[in-house]
Amino acid sequence: MYKIIILLFTFYATLITANEPVTPLPQSVQVNQAKAKLGQALFFDPILSHDGTVNCATCHDLHSGGDDGLKFSFGIRGQEGSVNAPTVYNAVFNFRQFWDGRAKDLQDQAAGPIQNPVEMGATFEEIIPKLKKSKYKKLFDAIYDEGITKNTITDAIAEYEKTLITPNSRFDKYLRGDKNALTQNEKEGYELFKSKGCVSCHHGENIGGNLYNKFGIFNESNSEWLGRYNITHKERDKYFFKVPSLRNIARTAPYFHDGRTYDLKKAVEIMSQYQLGRHITKEEISKITAFLQSLNGELPKNIEPQ
Amino acid sequence: MYKIIILLFTFYATLITANEPVTPLPQSVQVNQAKAKLGQALFFDPILSHDGTVNCATCHDLHSGGDDGLKFSFGIRGQEGSVNAPTVYNAVFNFRQFWDGRAKDLQDQAAGPIQNPVEMGATFEEIIPKLKKSKYKKLFDAIYDEGITKNTITDAIAEYEKTLITPNSRFDKYLRGDKNALTQNEKEGYELFKSKGCVSCHHGENIGGNLYNKFGIFNESNSEWLGRYNITHKERDKYFFKVPSLRNIARTAPYFHDGRTYDLKKAVEIMSQYQLGRHITKEEISKITAFLQSLNGELPKNIEPQ
Repeated sequence: MYKIIILLFTFYATLITANEPVTPLPQSVQVNQAKAKLGQALFFDPILSHDGTVNCATCHDLHSGGDDGLKFSFGIRGQEGSVNAPTVYNAVFNFRQFWDGRAKDLQDQAAGPIQNPVEMGATFEEIIPKLKKSKYKKLFDAIYDEGITKNTITDAIAEYEKTLITPNSRFDKYLRGDKNALTQNEKEGYELFKSKGCVSCHHGENIGGNLYNKFGIFNESNSEWLGRYNITHKERDKYFFKVPSLRNIARTAPYFHDGRTYDLKKAVEIMSQYQLGRHITKEEISKITAFLQSLNGELPKNIEPQ
Repeated sequence: MYKIIILLFTFYATLITANEPVTPLPQSVQVNQAKAKLGQALFFDPILSHDGTVNCATCHDLHSGGDDGLKFSFGIRGQEGSVNAPTVYNAVFNFRQFWDGRAKDLQDQAAGPIQNPVEMGATFEEIIPKLKKSKYKKLFDAIYDEGITKNTITDAIAEYEKTLITPNSRFDKYLRGDKNALTQNEKEGYELFKSKGCVSCHHGENIGGNLYNKFGIFNESNSEWLGRYNITHKERDKYFFKVPSLRNIARTAPYFHDGRTYDLKKAVEIMSQYQLGRHITKEEISKITAFLQSLNGELPKNIEPQ
């Protein structure tokens, strides 16, 4: 009898979510536990930076939104970056990494900040000998035949980052059939999110992160932020960026590639003007923002290395 | 005095179009005239098909929309294709070619139909000797050091296709400052096109053709048309297609990759439901359709080879 009820419930939940443009995050992603544990140690270890002052967690604080709350992050010697650090949470679900999509996956991405002169400012030639003289020698050798290389360092970090997902947001519970998981205001916000057109770019399991589009379809044609153009040097890629995921958006201010605002309501208003060219009322902004707040998911249980 | 008036007019026209998400097509594209003329001859010559029955113009009728008005085109021996033939007009402005973007440019695209067994069904090994025994020998040798090769055949066709643009649509005249170029109904349609969110994917000079997005953000999750997935075999690319250009859309029925409807109003309704998840009134559909009809541009003057 219970089985029938569960089956019916599952069927009903499938029915009501079948046509939704957003799908819940999975509860877990399969990883190699040994590699992920090693990657976690590396993620928190400033040994990967030139002067031992910066680790991955410096810009990707896992206790809040997986970013650092700054407009632009600080790297070694207090140098300031020039683009807003994206969250590492749920990055595994993005189709490419970085705002301009220049890294094809997490492993490719991981090599970026380590070598960026204004971020961790190191070279693999420099850090590999350091790692080989440390506790890491044994750890890598136990897992990787090739020992400590650029490939194995970034592979371990990427494997760990796959675990950095935030399932079970209230919105995901709602999508799975729990109609009480959202307030009336949040439900109306979701309907507005769909009917206003936000969803035409922010959809799928990550509510974004699966396509490029132009930032400022309406009014950004002389910005200094050229996006994918810097990678492809093609005129048509000017101002094109990866559409970011909206998962945990309320935890990841400031917003946009240039961190131009800390105010989520303002960010919604900017999107409406820039991407949809439409006026949006204060009440509508408030409801959409309420919906966005329901996208905060559960953080991993053991954040620091044990 | 006239100069000042023209300057002021230009300034005014620039001002009013500065924040528009759509820009006018250029009046011309720079091409190598000799190559383009050769490409034109090839475009119309069935010598490129296995049995001499099909040319490029078979599926790309340049006297109407640059397509053939069929749900699926017919190739050699009456074989039917399995995807709606896109228009060749303004294809030069698309960021990739084919619905699934598998060709990076016009030259890459041109090799496709020639070799597709259900389209022109030929091989370059087969057609190159035929061309070398024909009038083409002299024509190629005069232009290309390497003579007749796959590379030069597709290069000439691509060069010709760059000339297949349709500038000066009434809408482009409107964008350039001629406020009387559109009717009130069409102007309102354009405003709806923007405010309903259509513009979030259909923007830029080709009003589309510059990004991939999911067909059926709302309700296409079990279609047999997998789009880019067929190329990348990545789950996240399922149902992703190149957003098509809307230039000359009223001339290029039937619509969508599967040619599911000949009715432009129905196509607008489908887009509203599938991509934006919203109801749209009959009056709104009618106005948006009126706007879309203003996107018909001027066809080239000399279509057939002279």
